[in-house]
Amino acid sequence: MPSDTDALIRQHRTAAATLTVTSGGAPLASQEVVVAQRAHAFLFGCTGFEFIPLANGELVQAGAGPMEAGTGPAERLAEQWLDLFNFATLPFYWGRFEPERGRPDTRRLRETARWFTDRGCLVKGHPLAWHTVTAEWLTELTNPEITQVQLERIRREVTDFAGLIDTWDVINEVVIMPIFDRYDNGLTRICRELGRIPLVRMVFDAAREANPSATLLLNDFDMSAGYECLIEGVLEAGIRIDALGLQSHMHQGYWGEEKTLGIVDRFARYGLPIHFTETTLLSGPLMPAEIVDLNDYQPAEWPSTPAGEERQADEIVRHYKTLLSHPSVRATTYWGMVDGGWLGAPGGFVRADGTPKPSYDALRALVRDEWWLPPTPRGTDEDGRVRFTGFLGEYEVSAAGRTATFRLDEPGTTALTVEV
Amino acid sequence: MPSDTDALIRQHRTAAATLTVTSGGAPLASQEVVVAQRAHAFLFGCTGFEFIPLANGELVQAGAGPMEAGTGPAERLAEQWLDLFNFATLPFYWGRFEPERGRPDTRRLRETARWFTDRGCLVKGHPLAWHTVTAEWLTELTNPEITQVQLERIRREVTDFAGLIDTWDVINEVVIMPIFDRYDNGLTRICRELGRIPLVRMVFDAAREANPSATLLLNDFDMSAGYECLIEGVLEAGIRIDALGLQSHMHQGYWGEEKTLGIVDRFARYGLPIHFTETTLLSGPLMPAEIVDLNDYQPAEWPSTPAGEERQADEIVRHYKTLLSHPSVRATTYWGMVDGGWLGAPGGFVRADGTPKPSYDALRALVRDEWWLPPTPRGTDEDGRVRFTGFLGEYEVSAAGRTATFRLDEPGTTALTVEV
Repeated sequence: MPSDTDALIRQHRTAAATLTVTSGGAPLASQEVVVAQRAHAFLFGCTGFEFIPLANGELVQAGAGPMEAGTGPAERLAEQWLDLFNFATLPFYWGRFEPERGRPDTRRLRETARWFTDRGCLVKGHPLAWHTVTAEWLTELTNPEITQVQLERIRREVTDFAGLIDTWDVINEVVIMPIFDRYDNGLTRICRELGRIPLVRMVFDAAREANPSATLLLNDFDMSAGYECLIEGVLEAGIRIDALGLQSHMHQGYWGEEKTLGIVDRFARYGLPIHFTETTLLSGPLMPAEIVDLNDYQPAEWPSTPAGEERQADEIVRHYKTLLSHPSVRATTYWGMVDGGWLGAPGGFVRADGTPKPSYDALRALVRDEWWLPPTPRGTDEDGRVRFTGFLGEYEVSAAGRTATFRLDEPGTTALTVEV
Repeated sequence: MPSDTDALIRQHRTAAATLTVTSGGAPLASQEVVVAQRAHAFLFGCTGFEFIPLANGELVQAGAGPMEAGTGPAERLAEQWLDLFNFATLPFYWGRFEPERGRPDTRRLRETARWFTDRGCLVKGHPLAWHTVTAEWLTELTNPEITQVQLERIRREVTDFAGLIDTWDVINEVVIMPIFDRYDNGLTRICRELGRIPLVRMVFDAAREANPSATLLLNDFDMSAGYECLIEGVLEAGIRIDALGLQSHMHQGYWGEEKTLGIVDRFARYGLPIHFTETTLLSGPLMPAEIVDLNDYQPAEWPSTPAGEERQADEIVRHYKTLLSHPSVRATTYWGMVDGGWLGAPGGFVRADGTPKPSYDALRALVRDEWWLPPTPRGTDEDGRVRFTGFLGEYEVSAAGRTATFRLDEPGTTALTVEV
């Protein structure tokens, strides 16, 4: 790891605050106060697909009624999840969300989104348009009909979830979309006919119209010049993109700092926030390098190993430190909290039996320790001031039995006054 | 080869003509006439770099004056070249054309272009903007200055050569241009700062303004979705491209019909003429598949072999037939008539000693025999008509001691009247 990574993280992610604590408008001079961080500004994300049954009260114990709160493995997993993450991605794959036309799974997804927002998390929907796992019934429609129902679908979901989900992967993997040739599907058909940029414009317009304050992402796995060319064409066409999504499924091995920063630098040129939308690092055997489509590799057994777990923990630290060292990266979403989810790979922070791996403890040590300000007693000076340095995010200060909150939103030095 | 290739070639490349021959306005009934093809409409192209010394009278025999016409190896090579090709690409690599700022090699290139046009060939200039072999002195300039002199350079060349060269590869390899990292150069600098599409717009505007009737190409080696995305962005931005250039250096092996047609189909979606701008097929050992940049492989010896020559001849026939079977392809340019030119590879139709390979005879058999109408006697009917089928291009008809020319420009059936 470059020796200055930690320095860059401090530069881009922390603020040196001078906090004046007042009560009734007067400085609280020479008193003990306690400053504590409550939340990170950086979006530490993970998929939350596993929590749909829990959030909807669908879990039952064998031969009994619904589980009592806090007793089952799902609830223990939820505790683990919430101790690491503040940003959940929920599944809106059209083929699963609305397998039968006209019967979308809106209610269950709303319950799940609310479950996360009630716990202080931001929620993102993924994806509103994609050629994979799209609704099979699209192929019975004409291209103009597919386009119409795709746009209607976007308006419906973005409207139905506004206030719970205000961040969306609007369209996924457009670089390959019109030439995807593994099977026929409605999205490839319309993307080929309309062209990539007109389709991107339509789906972003539909989402923007349904929720003007939403954060709308373009997302892709293609880290080549192809994605750059797509982005440049989209921006040149005047389409507003709020953040660029970069996938980083590292089933074939950790990219390393140099490659990762090279990619971030290339996509940071557009001046847009960057989200690492889909990150995986394995704690078992790697996928062979010759596999092109990750879906093609699904071995009968894919175990997590002790050596693999040590490697994964090390790579998690290196990867997260690398991302936070670059100011353009605003979010990273891990793909699969628990082993054996997507593709059966041992990519989780938690083993299939629910026990945390070394990678879990390693990330927790960053998020809740190295990059975190625990409740910290300080004495104010004669002007009611305390000085501290903390990672950007939400804080509270307690004094004289009262507590007030404030935020550190910009790196560098800052002065704030907080009335308790 | 697909069994219907020849049928597709006939469908897209030939016309069934009913020719009414008149003299003094009256049909020449029941007379013998001779119909003969004079030129192909399809652009069978090749680089013509080797002929600059010949065209400029720079060749001298040892100890003597300039060679007499028709006596040297260069003139024999010229005869071979002109028997296969009707379309020459001449080099305008900025770093060689104007190595010292303000001293462009205009005169010698004009002489060479005139040499080709005097012999009935269309000439293309290659390239007006590229990050490789660009002028080294650009790196001493600021980015606004580089942009300015790049545009001035384009206006100068396109103006100076108008009438001799009206076809240009305006900009080369834009997909990789802003992230090219092998060495610093002026074009990568400005492409990174301006963005791909704004730079493409500037260089095309400059060329178009200097010669509004020119045919202007965008050219790339990247056959991936990246080039598609670039093209879609450029077209969406309203930039007019007259033809798309696809490189096809097959140093690592012939692509085969399926891959070639797959590529043509993908780029034909934009409704633009397609030029295969840079084709190479080897008659010796192939370049190892793991080489990414062709420039990285330059073995000490790279011989043409008998087995390789047979393979090359077969692949030349398959490749040219494949290209002519697709109606979007309007031109193909072979890269290097003689072995040992670019990268030292045995990619020529002619060996280093000047003798033609089997590939030469194979292509000649297509261009001058299978796809060619030699002087053919026909008797007109009572209305002065003869019927014949020929490849698109220029023809002559001779009757009663006089000769007139006409063209077949569109495939299918056609009726023409020609006054001799």
